[in-house]
Amino acid sequence: MSCEANGSVGIGLLGAGVVGSEVARAILKPSVSSVSESGLELRRVLVRDASKQRPDISPDLITDEAESVLANPEVAVVVEVMGGEEPARSYIAAALSTGKHVVTANKEVLAKHGDELVRTARENGVALSFEASVGGGIPVLAVLQDSLGANRIDTIRAIINGTTNYILTSMEESGATFEDSLAEAQRLGYAEADPTADVSAYDPVYKLCILARLAWGASINPDDVYREGIEKIESKDLRYARELGFKIKLLAIGTAGDDGIRCRVHPALVPSDVPMADVNGVLNAVEFNGDRVGPLWLQGRGAGAGPTASAVLGDVLRIARRIRVGDRGRARFATTSGIAGAAPPPGISTMNEMRIRYYVRLSALDRSGVLAKIATVFGDMQISIASVIQKDLDDARGIADVVIMTHPAMELNMQMAANLLSELDVVSSLDNLIRVEDYVRSSGS
Amino acid sequence: MSCEANGSVGIGLLGAGVVGSEVARAILKPSVSSVSESGLELRRVLVRDASKQRPDISPDLITDEAESVLANPEVAVVVEVMGGEEPARSYIAAALSTGKHVVTANKEVLAKHGDELVRTARENGVALSFEASVGGGIPVLAVLQDSLGANRIDTIRAIINGTTNYILTSMEESGATFEDSLAEAQRLGYAEADPTADVSAYDPVYKLCILARLAWGASINPDDVYREGIEKIESKDLRYARELGFKIKLLAIGTAGDDGIRCRVHPALVPSDVPMADVNGVLNAVEFNGDRVGPLWLQGRGAGAGPTASAVLGDVLRIARRIRVGDRGRARFATTSGIAGAAPPPGISTMNEMRIRYYVRLSALDRSGVLAKIATVFGDMQISIASVIQKDLDDARGIADVVIMTHPAMELNMQMAANLLSELDVVSSLDNLIRVEDYVRSSGS
Repeated sequence: MSCEANGSVGIGLLGAGVVGSEVARAILKPSVSSVSESGLELRRVLVRDASKQRPDISPDLITDEAESVLANPEVAVVVEVMGGEEPARSYIAAALSTGKHVVTANKEVLAKHGDELVRTARENGVALSFEASVGGGIPVLAVLQDSLGANRIDTIRAIINGTTNYILTSMEESGATFEDSLAEAQRLGYAEADPTADVSAYDPVYKLCILARLAWGASINPDDVYREGIEKIESKDLRYARELGFKIKLLAIGTAGDDGIRCRVHPALVPSDVPMADVNGVLNAVEFNGDRVGPLWLQGRGAGAGPTASAVLGDVLRIARRIRVGDRGRARFATTSGIAGAAPPPGISTMNEMRIRYYVRLSALDRSGVLAKIATVFGDMQISIASVIQKDLDDARGIADVVIMTHPAMELNMQMAANLLSELDVVSSLDNLIRVEDYVRSSGS
Repeated sequence: MSCEANGSVGIGLLGAGVVGSEVARAILKPSVSSVSESGLELRRVLVRDASKQRPDISPDLITDEAESVLANPEVAVVVEVMGGEEPARSYIAAALSTGKHVVTANKEVLAKHGDELVRTARENGVALSFEASVGGGIPVLAVLQDSLGANRIDTIRAIINGTTNYILTSMEESGATFEDSLAEAQRLGYAEADPTADVSAYDPVYKLCILARLAWGASINPDDVYREGIEKIESKDLRYARELGFKIKLLAIGTAGDDGIRCRVHPALVPSDVPMADVNGVLNAVEFNGDRVGPLWLQGRGAGAGPTASAVLGDVLRIARRIRVGDRGRARFATTSGIAGAAPPPGISTMNEMRIRYYVRLSALDRSGVLAKIATVFGDMQISIASVIQKDLDDARGIADVVIMTHPAMELNMQMAANLLSELDVVSSLDNLIRVEDYVRSSGS
């Protein structure tokens, strides 16, 4: 372990993309005393192409061999900002195994290999910190794990994918199609060339797994999280939702109740007058509900070099302080937050038993008796209808949009109803089924 | 120092009001593993009336003698939740002097005696933590000091007084007078019998001093903060502001720029479409702007037993962890956040040089030539007028409300203009002068 006599703390950086470069600059040319007085010393930077010119980083520090960071006795803290599953996972594991603290922004590695990496960190008595993996610059994890330590958390609701939020906001504001909004996001650098991780919601699923681990000590496999992307949202859904008093957001939701922990990521109708409805563009927001603190709301930039570097450096500074006071640190994954005394975390709930309201949009024949047939399906499945609106008649085809809002119903029943509706001869297609996120209004808010 | 062999951490509580009782209950009957596994042991509770029945706290723990907490070798952490300046200050100083860590919710003591108490804490190698002193359950200080450590903060804007925010919201929503809204707040327990500390804005001034200390290492005397309460706000101001696209909020604002640090608390017109405008009732919100993280927004319950206890316990748990790993702790006031390398904090700026927009409401004679005289005063003082609206004519007296919005002008000029306006024969009274808080819209937000 490398806390040297002069009190310096050696940093090894894995990756020198936009985030890595920003971290390097912050250490090499500190602009605040908390960094300049922290003793941080950049010792080595792993890059893919060592021949590339980098104006901010001395060539002496650059390497393309992982070992010269991971096995470097002068490196006390390894900062992993490469992204992707491999080789990032192997490098993190190797660093922890040789007694180095690790700071990472890698949600995929944490969500998929958290258990293994936490164990390695614990066994080696080092810290594994990952504030930047969720919510960019918003200190979501520190708040959840540290400041809210005396709270039992019952709900986490979050917009933690800027790409999809940008696309939905753009569709909402301009009436553009999903495809056009995605193309615009790609042009602006908010979406990747292959946008699957974002639009199909893998990214927010990873982040929700990390939040659930810190809130409830639960080890949740990303495959066990209900996941639905925004590909099926049409601009007419946003328009109908607005007319009903809602916006549509891709929410990541974790709840802990008597029936266990339930984690889900899907588009949801959010009442227009709650703060979540006003989180627009690439912003992220996270809402915790704790038994003592009540609802707590954090909002900020969820991506980008500056915000991500802010979170990475916050973790690095925390570890540096601990090194300097002689505490070798314990894995932050070894959270002290958790539910209910020494009781083990409750089980994972499936979606089937969830009771929730639904927005249902279908294309139906525009003739008498149609609504009766549709309503019968809902009735048979014990789903109570709150309102029905007919919209946008296509005269030529004799087909109209029918938008149905239900009262709270069981997910399993709704899915069965959806199958039956698709099979009705008067229904040409069931176009969308979107859950409604209800907010209990608290006094004084 | 009292970290015992079994790993328990003795707690002494000063005060058993609503917050103290909640803290005691959380320790005695922990509902989360982070508390039950922390080793916290409640050793003594100081109360005013030891004979009073307290269902949750064993009589053995109760005392009305401060010494039996402060000089108790079994107490490692003293939690002060009595409030008020004395004897709280003396007790905190005494506890620190004898090597006990202190957690306090006392903004007045911190704002007025921060320097002295920080010094005492440092000299004795103990922690002085005070998350609960600002923003209730919102972890404002931990975020500012810890998570944002790598940021240069240029702006803090906050609604950190729930009482005045409740009154303004109530006036806005119901059109009620200040007096009636205050009376309602008192009836609901949101305002004290003597409401001066809140409505005259002493309370948010204390809190802003604490924020400025953590953000900039600045030791700011509460008397040096510009302070203006909400007593002069009339419901017609809220109405006119709304028509102009604003809400009126009591803001606490700290800025650090080339001209130094400027701290001010006053009512301000806030654009209706920014999140700050939607912070209603007793909610609190704090917005930091950091060079890396960008704008970061925190919102939650700023007062009440649950939220305050949440913050107090967060601090206690943090100290307990440090005791258990053998770090005796350093005063949290010894912040590492600060401006610009090792440079000393910049000086304090006065209001005079500030450039800002103004809302001016005056009662003027309803006859020709009046506006010319008024406009001449603004022109002479080099203040450019953006709009003038005449409102609410009082036919009997021949007097109308005139509402003037200016372009950015220097505060000193505006104050001189205000004096000249009051003296004009065509102006019967200058009724209100409210600053406008402008928001620079960031991309993607």
